[in-house]
Amino acid sequence: MTDLTRIGTAAKTAHRCLAALDGGQKNALLTAVAGAVRQGCEQIVAANRQDMQRAAAGGMSESMLDRLKLDESRVAAMADAVLQVAGLDDPIGRVEDGRTLENGLKMTRVRVPMGVIGIIYEARPNVTLDAAALCLKTSNCVILKGGKEALDSNRAIVACVRGAIEQMGLDPNMVTLIEDTSREVTTQFMKLNGYLDLLIPRGGAGLIRAVVQNATVPVIETGTGNCHIYVEKSADIDMAVRIAQNAKVSRPSVCNAAESFLVDRQVAAEFLPRVAAAMEDPYVQIVGCKETCAILGKRAEPATEQDYDTEFLDYKVSVKVVSGIEEAMEHIARYSTGHSECIVTRDLKAAEIFTAGVDAAAVYVNASTRFTDGGVFGMGAEIGISTQKLHARGPMGLWEMTSYKYIVMGNGQIR
Amino acid sequence: MTDLTRIGTAAKTAHRCLAALDGGQKNALLTAVAGAVRQGCEQIVAANRQDMQRAAAGGMSESMLDRLKLDESRVAAMADAVLQVAGLDDPIGRVEDGRTLENGLKMTRVRVPMGVIGIIYEARPNVTLDAAALCLKTSNCVILKGGKEALDSNRAIVACVRGAIEQMGLDPNMVTLIEDTSREVTTQFMKLNGYLDLLIPRGGAGLIRAVVQNATVPVIETGTGNCHIYVEKSADIDMAVRIAQNAKVSRPSVCNAAESFLVDRQVAAEFLPRVAAAMEDPYVQIVGCKETCAILGKRAEPATEQDYDTEFLDYKVSVKVVSGIEEAMEHIARYSTGHSECIVTRDLKAAEIFTAGVDAAAVYVNASTRFTDGGVFGMGAEIGISTQKLHARGPMGLWEMTSYKYIVMGNGQIR
Repeated sequence: MTDLTRIGTAAKTAHRCLAALDGGQKNALLTAVAGAVRQGCEQIVAANRQDMQRAAAGGMSESMLDRLKLDESRVAAMADAVLQVAGLDDPIGRVEDGRTLENGLKMTRVRVPMGVIGIIYEARPNVTLDAAALCLKTSNCVILKGGKEALDSNRAIVACVRGAIEQMGLDPNMVTLIEDTSREVTTQFMKLNGYLDLLIPRGGAGLIRAVVQNATVPVIETGTGNCHIYVEKSADIDMAVRIAQNAKVSRPSVCNAAESFLVDRQVAAEFLPRVAAAMEDPYVQIVGCKETCAILGKRAEPATEQDYDTEFLDYKVSVKVVSGIEEAMEHIARYSTGHSECIVTRDLKAAEIFTAGVDAAAVYVNASTRFTDGGVFGMGAEIGISTQKLHARGPMGLWEMTSYKYIVMGNGQIR
Repeated sequence: MTDLTRIGTAAKTAHRCLAALDGGQKNALLTAVAGAVRQGCEQIVAANRQDMQRAAAGGMSESMLDRLKLDESRVAAMADAVLQVAGLDDPIGRVEDGRTLENGLKMTRVRVPMGVIGIIYEARPNVTLDAAALCLKTSNCVILKGGKEALDSNRAIVACVRGAIEQMGLDPNMVTLIEDTSREVTTQFMKLNGYLDLLIPRGGAGLIRAVVQNATVPVIETGTGNCHIYVEKSADIDMAVRIAQNAKVSRPSVCNAAESFLVDRQVAAEFLPRVAAAMEDPYVQIVGCKETCAILGKRAEPATEQDYDTEFLDYKVSVKVVSGIEEAMEHIARYSTGHSECIVTRDLKAAEIFTAGVDAAAVYVNASTRFTDGGVFGMGAEIGISTQKLHARGPMGLWEMTSYKYIVMGNGQIR
């Protein structure tokens, strides 16, 4: 079995080298990485072809195959994204706070890297380069554990990255891929205390749950989005239909897509047929409560408890008629994953109650949940969307990949 | 076995009540709590007497007994501390950031409570009231799990707190004590996902380790301090002795006390005899490397690997002679718990290298590590000192007990 403590030790050692680079040197490194990936495009695509063949033979679904696939234009886009990361502001070294204490101690609080970040993800090889770039930019070493389906692609990408680092005379262990994709090694990875300062899972609900249940290192839960659109009785119904449609169908496979519509009883008879019509093209399966089914007839099937608790990530939506904002918020409190929640309303008081009372990373009034995104939120790039409250919430950009330390300058003070 | 999901559900429900209180109402509540504790002083002291008798009969050490003990003046001090917490700035509701996006979406980032915080601690009943006050001030419900040795005291204190909450017509489940101190319940507590937004262990290294190893809810590691004083070759030796003495003996049982002295070979023969003299009254046991023993003769015993890895919290110190700043920093990187580290030096470059390269919550130049403290750092109060890099580092005050959410106001924006 692969000894992860060796990989961990190497990453910790490499961190001294990485931490010594200033912003300009890090950007030069990222530029070299982007160049190496462009240059290695052919090998990367060839390696990916191996992965694709194995996956297709193994019966992987079309949509999964599409996520796994790399071609020349996708590799070029990945390399471009590295250059974009290079162009972002560097949070490291920023003095956030500081003061002189009464006894003359000069205290400053400075942004520092986490140290070594672990990323655990599935069969999406673009995550490999993306995560490596974001980590290098924030002076973090990264240990990558991708899905076994993408192993050849990941190896080829990481070879380019490490080659670029080495060519600059730096320690390539800043970026390491765990090539042993066995379950035992994955479990060991989650328990690599003393080496991993942070572990970020990127993937489906099953992966996230496994990490949360098994990890002993600090973890940030990301990306499960059971998001609701609540149509309050005073809502502009045109707007509600437009927002519901956009949140559901503009990109159903992403975590900020809506999975459930809640509608006040007073406007259900008006809203539901119109939103059902908007779910025709592309066609969205509707499951609903009794009242929904009574209004929509055959267009809706009965929803189960499980439906309300599911992030479909597909052309399917659950619907529930509620008595008012209290019931809507209770439903959301029960089933929400704390990602993004929306109320459509013209009532100021309802907007206030909803934004104050709903416990989610992003709470929207009269706008699609689809906006929860690092790019939209002005972060330039994101490593994931946190659905926990510790450390970071919502889109995690460069700042969220860092920590701080206090530096205290004295001249002999004792206590 | 106690069903913690029932307690968790009750705390979540109570959180709606607590979250609806504004700053003035929370301060009124804290004032009532302080009053109730003062009024209940007699019952609290009587309950504590039960704990003390059981503990003494069970052979608890003197220093542990002292930590367990409550008398009238200690209870009064606890109540005063609640009023001090009431007087601090309330972080909840503060708008930290905000902007209008190009599409007209108005985004603000607002400080919000964590929700429900769990505190797991040992036989120190003052933590009970302290944690309850800090949580209420930050609009967090709290579930307390104290050591079984302090159960009667904790019950009496929590009865006062809940009584005060109820008298104001509010939900007493804002503050709950787990009275079942069995190991099974403790383990269940650490895995109370969906109910606990954060778990903070307060206690010795064993407790912290058990929580880190077993918890599946988000945790903040606190308070283990294997802190070093490094005497660099250019150091003012008078200052170095003064700082080393203060850091070691002013209060050896606390986490910001020094446990280890590192000294450059060039100044070892000067520094070591002087610091050894400073370790006479009160007397401090010295364990050191070969060179230390050669210089100090019988005053030092040989140090083991284990000694360098131990937070003594006692009148004992480990000493090592090093070849220079590189070896000192390597030693610190290996044994430090990331709490507080100090260099004594007159050399600017050495100070820069040390503050940049040492990975700890607080890095000191020419000042005692004893200053790492929420009060000193201007936080007014602290719930603990984080030794991890996720979320909070160093002293954790009110701000560190909160999270944020994005509130996005639109007028029909879709993506």
